[in-house]
Amino acid sequence: MISLLAAFALIATGPAAAAAPAADSPPAIIGFTAAHAGDEHALEARFDAALKPGDLRAWMERLTRHPHHVGSPWDKANMDFILSLYKSWGYDAHEERFDVLFPTPKQRLLELTAPTTFKASLTEDPVAGDRSSQQQREYLPPFNAYSPDGDVRGSLVYVNYGLQADYDLLAQHGIDVRGKIVIARYGHAWRGIKPKVAAEHGAIGCIIYSDPANDGFGRGDTYPNGPWRAPSSVQRGAVTDDVYLGDPSMPGRASLPGSTGRLTYKQAQTIAAIPTMPISYRDAQPLLAALRGAAVPSAWHGGLALPYHFGGGAARVHMIVKSNWRITPIYDVIARMTGTVEPNVWTIRGNHQDAWVSGAADPISGQVAVLEEARAVSVLAKSGWRPKRTMIYCAWDAEEPGLLGSTAWTEAHHEELAKNAALYVNSDTNGRGFFFADGTHSVESMLNGIAKDVQDPERPASIYARTRASEIVGGDRTGENEDDDIHLGAPGSGSDYASFSDYYGIPVMDIGFAGENGDGGVYHSAYDSFAWYVKYGDPAFAYGVTLAKVGGRAMLRFANADVLPYRYTAFAKTLDRYRGEIVKLVDDTRALTATTNRHLAQHVGELAADPHEPYVAPQPLGDVPTFDFTTLTAATERLTAASAAYDMAADAALARGVIPPAADPALVAVERGELDNRGLPRRPLYKNQIYEPGYYTGYDAKTMPGIREALEARNWDEARSYIPTVTAVVSSLADRINAATATLK
Amino acid sequence: MISLLAAFALIATGPAAAAAPAADSPPAIIGFTAAHAGDEHALEARFDAALKPGDLRAWMERLTRHPHHVGSPWDKANMDFILSLYKSWGYDAHEERFDVLFPTPKQRLLELTAPTTFKASLTEDPVAGDRSSQQQREYLPPFNAYSPDGDVRGSLVYVNYGLQADYDLLAQHGIDVRGKIVIARYGHAWRGIKPKVAAEHGAIGCIIYSDPANDGFGRGDTYPNGPWRAPSSVQRGAVTDDVYLGDPSMPGRASLPGSTGRLTYKQAQTIAAIPTMPISYRDAQPLLAALRGAAVPSAWHGGLALPYHFGGGAARVHMIVKSNWRITPIYDVIARMTGTVEPNVWTIRGNHQDAWVSGAADPISGQVAVLEEARAVSVLAKSGWRPKRTMIYCAWDAEEPGLLGSTAWTEAHHEELAKNAALYVNSDTNGRGFFFADGTHSVESMLNGIAKDVQDPERPASIYARTRASEIVGGDRTGENEDDDIHLGAPGSGSDYASFSDYYGIPVMDIGFAGENGDGGVYHSAYDSFAWYVKYGDPAFAYGVTLAKVGGRAMLRFANADVLPYRYTAFAKTLDRYRGEIVKLVDDTRALTATTNRHLAQHVGELAADPHEPYVAPQPLGDVPTFDFTTLTAATERLTAASAAYDMAADAALARGVIPPAADPALVAVERGELDNRGLPRRPLYKNQIYEPGYYTGYDAKTMPGIREALEARNWDEARSYIPTVTAVVSSLADRINAATATLK
Repeated sequence: MISLLAAFALIATGPAAAAAPAADSPPAIIGFTAAHAGDEHALEARFDAALKPGDLRAWMERLTRHPHHVGSPWDKANMDFILSLYKSWGYDAHEERFDVLFPTPKQRLLELTAPTTFKASLTEDPVAGDRSSQQQREYLPPFNAYSPDGDVRGSLVYVNYGLQADYDLLAQHGIDVRGKIVIARYGHAWRGIKPKVAAEHGAIGCIIYSDPANDGFGRGDTYPNGPWRAPSSVQRGAVTDDVYLGDPSMPGRASLPGSTGRLTYKQAQTIAAIPTMPISYRDAQPLLAALRGAAVPSAWHGGLALPYHFGGGAARVHMIVKSNWRITPIYDVIARMTGTVEPNVWTIRGNHQDAWVSGAADPISGQVAVLEEARAVSVLAKSGWRPKRTMIYCAWDAEEPGLLGSTAWTEAHHEELAKNAALYVNSDTNGRGFFFADGTHSVESMLNGIAKDVQDPERPASIYARTRASEIVGGDRTGENEDDDIHLGAPGSGSDYASFSDYYGIPVMDIGFAGENGDGGVYHSAYDSFAWYVKYGDPAFAYGVTLAKVGGRAMLRFANADVLPYRYTAFAKTLDRYRGEIVKLVDDTRALTATTNRHLAQHVGELAADPHEPYVAPQPLGDVPTFDFTTLTAATERLTAASAAYDMAADAALARGVIPPAADPALVAVERGELDNRGLPRRPLYKNQIYEPGYYTGYDAKTMPGIREALEARNWDEARSYIPTVTAVVSSLADRINAATATLK
Repeated sequence: MISLLAAFALIATGPAAAAAPAADSPPAIIGFTAAHAGDEHALEARFDAALKPGDLRAWMERLTRHPHHVGSPWDKANMDFILSLYKSWGYDAHEERFDVLFPTPKQRLLELTAPTTFKASLTEDPVAGDRSSQQQREYLPPFNAYSPDGDVRGSLVYVNYGLQADYDLLAQHGIDVRGKIVIARYGHAWRGIKPKVAAEHGAIGCIIYSDPANDGFGRGDTYPNGPWRAPSSVQRGAVTDDVYLGDPSMPGRASLPGSTGRLTYKQAQTIAAIPTMPISYRDAQPLLAALRGAAVPSAWHGGLALPYHFGGGAARVHMIVKSNWRITPIYDVIARMTGTVEPNVWTIRGNHQDAWVSGAADPISGQVAVLEEARAVSVLAKSGWRPKRTMIYCAWDAEEPGLLGSTAWTEAHHEELAKNAALYVNSDTNGRGFFFADGTHSVESMLNGIAKDVQDPERPASIYARTRASEIVGGDRTGENEDDDIHLGAPGSGSDYASFSDYYGIPVMDIGFAGENGDGGVYHSAYDSFAWYVKYGDPAFAYGVTLAKVGGRAMLRFANADVLPYRYTAFAKTLDRYRGEIVKLVDDTRALTATTNRHLAQHVGELAADPHEPYVAPQPLGDVPTFDFTTLTAATERLTAASAAYDMAADAALARGVIPPAADPALVAVERGELDNRGLPRRPLYKNQIYEPGYYTGYDAKTMPGIREALEARNWDEARSYIPTVTAVVSSLADRINAATATLK
């Protein structure tokens, strides 16, 4: 059937096209010979035809019927339901259990005690017609998981986003947070960074709220009148200090049932340093209104109808956070379709299932797209097609508290993964809007090919064209870059691809649609519900189906290609850009140091400050030494050459139609070269020397982090010590790519 | 006495200094020989010693005791009081009366009629302890002067700042304001631009409100808790379309009592096109809350606690504006101290006296500084010193409704001014903060000399050093420009220097202090009171005294210098920068046109827009032709050479100590060369071809406006036709500077 369809495709392009060079007709697909590209296009057309939006809607309704947080009955019921689906579709599927430390709220109190009194409600109002919002007795109330237990009292200080630069500004205004409780707004870094930086500055408690300018009426109509965050809505979430991933009680080891040597929560290094609590902007209003002192600068003003002040004076709060610290079972579903030719080359697809409440958007919108994708693959399989390489579909548990399910699974299976894993494709939240992708850059070219092949469901254009247009309108793509590929964001953290990439050097991509559904507006709240999603998220599940088309193509192309569809030119170019950024960072830091010190000597800051307000000048900065990047530059040049040579050799081999069997194993080994056993400073389990989540950003990646973050921290010796490490990694990548090229000759 | 002091100064610097080249010791002053610079410094020290902050406070208390808007009893009483002061100090002083068209409110109504109802209060709440705010029966309620009478009903549309770019965005969203009433927030252009642009797009009424993000709690604590705008506070102000300055009923002619040929308000071209009304953010809240439709983009969101929408649907308002259109007498005070050597070379100093309500900040804070300056000058005069050249102090009436007092006076005396006026020095509002100056660039060097000589009253540094510091911190001054002079802003409009510069080519400067007093927070409201000013504005009147030091130095240096203290290097450099900006504007417009049209052809805007909302693509732009700027470039090069030659010749002549009497008249004539009788397009009375207020900005200057504004409007033929005009003007400036240089040889 497949070859018949391919033949039709060939005929349809006409004899002239058939006579043209093989790579031009039918449309080329990276990793495929011309003839097999035709087969693949035909297969993908059948795959698309099998996708049914009604499935997504029905499964979302089912999976969101009750709160399904970690350890809840519906969490397990959902996993069992997903397992049954995979089994019914013919996958070799099973559940894997892990036992993890997961705290749930025992006591929560927040009150203003001076100069007036106010007790925060810490609850979310039910909304008529929204079942999820009415299930208060079933769902976990708003809390920050892995806050330590505590009962603290102190003067309240507003710290904007709660990052280092914010504390620098407070210090300039003579405000010290030692012994005080800070209130920070969500945004500009992962939430776990806020208590971490607050504690570094001596704060004893941390309140995090959703400011309506960022996440509320400042964006548009609030739920239920619109998609945006309602006054009582609270963003839940973990606040770990992610010096390692996954279960805090089992650093670097799979949390298998019956494991010994588990850390208590007080021993665990990732538990937040100070009691931390999330609140709504309705609860934040009286707290912020009670603050006095100087008016904040305009960049610190939020959307509440009040003058924002730094505080740190008479306004005092009392805060209690206590949790039940239980070891809780979690369940990942793993469903396999074994490859017929290369069973030991794995492409893995995943999305989590657990939610903070009902999680229609996060994560069920992505989960149902992945399920539908897997079902459509099974339809192909039932009609006779089988993948050359192994495809594995996963539903992760316990992503929300810190990627516990996926991390435990990768830790449990790391030896097989190291040998076999070619790619992990992640999704999470999905909704109306524009295609986005983060990932390792060896798959950038392939993913752009897919984005050009898949049509937007609401405009007559490819999803590539719409993302390109939105990047042009947003100013991210100008002039000569207008017709470039979509550039993948560097993978950081925040979803289940993290351990694959950060610990094990497995190529990853994280894909989805967003930007037109106001999905941030119910993020991690009780309003992230089926009712919300079918009104605002993706009412027709059109972008859910489109995500299945993209994810399905990535899986099918990795499964079917004549050679694994990596391309290294974009990869090398990106790594060379990172190198250039680091060189520039040194120069910029040196220039900024000189300027800052000159201005300090001239009292510029003091002269520009209002004499009626306190002003404390910062200390002069130390000199920036010189760094020798010669070896790193040489290594990236070698990588560039190796990458160009591989891409040419792969094209030539595909044109010849002869791919030696040694190629794929050599390719799978390439990105393991990103790892160095030394790990990162203060994070020895993070082995990847190219892509890692930032120590002070959390979600956002820092690339070549050993050097970059040390420079940012002005830790010159540490930065210098990581130059050979990163150079060795880049060199190893070049060697491994050359080895892969050698197999093709 | 003076020469004795100068001798002491010379002795104090020691014999080595005395032996050094004359220009180096004592500190040089532009326009003075070395010996006379010593005299001048000594004189200025005596001048400073005469200044008493208590005077400023007492006069402010007196002048703000009652509302003193145009035509009010206290307006006339204040003018009589100021006249009596000048007479008591020995000035040759008199009042000059003009009769002008000035409307006062007769009927004001604003109500929401659908989907709910609300009637705007249009009143400002009295504040305990603030006398001015309690004088509602005496003061004019909030209104926009020169709104036409009207009674209109229509659907309400939010138009952000109400500028062309805002209407472009509305059009993209499919929203048309024809037959509707717009609500715009204050800011980003002079208020009169808002009804003008609204009417150009077919709106039938215009509401202007103060958004709290720009002007309210978004800046800090609101009055009376802090300096910023209170919820009921309204910014009054004129909304003329300033195609000419001054009295709308007498374009281009002095409004002398008994004048004939006066226009009715319906004939006057400057009256706003549609009924316009200012409101508070308390009154704006229910109107904006009633709007529906798409959520606005984030740049359009203001500070009210609601989601902002475009509207244009079911929410309707009813608005009545009616005025008493009376011819009203106004009184300028003119006080002269005639020069002993060159009585026909005039330096003029002015500040207005009329206010919208009690106007402690605007204009009395500046007025009392100018009065104290004039009094200290009289102290010098009583001790035997007399100015070489004539000094004239003015207190203007009717500035607020449209610079009526100063414009009428310049129109009445334009022939003498054309011959005699060397400089007009304006002040208006003053408060704590940083020195600012706009003006013609021939006085930039002199003014920087003054700014380096005058100390800030609250920091141990010169006012130059503090302005420099604030420009560095604000990012306006970086790297190589850190040690430049303070660059004067180009003079636009908005205070009484406008007719001097725009009509008559008289060099002007506008000086004051601002930035640390939240003065915008009570601007044109009933809360701009003595109570507010002594708490927030400049409680010790320290910056008032400092303004007197700066203004006094400018007056005294122009009065005493050996040769008028112009320098043309900065002037030529600035005009060459304007030329460069215009050349770049053509290039940028061409590039933007190409990009815009390419994106339109590729449907970029549509592909980036949410398919669930209306999107209307704009029309493609016409091609940008080429322009030949060769002659203009040659003229600016000639000006640069002429300027350098003059500055060198002046230094040499001062070093020789011989200044021929022909020099000053030649210098006075230089900037009349900025005028061309052709005037500007659609504004024939504006003759200045270098500096003018923008047709669509109002306050902000457009430089070389004949070319620049035509390019901005894509009116290529008009732009081309102004190249020879501007070239001729620049050429004439070079000729006139060369003529001045010739007098020195």
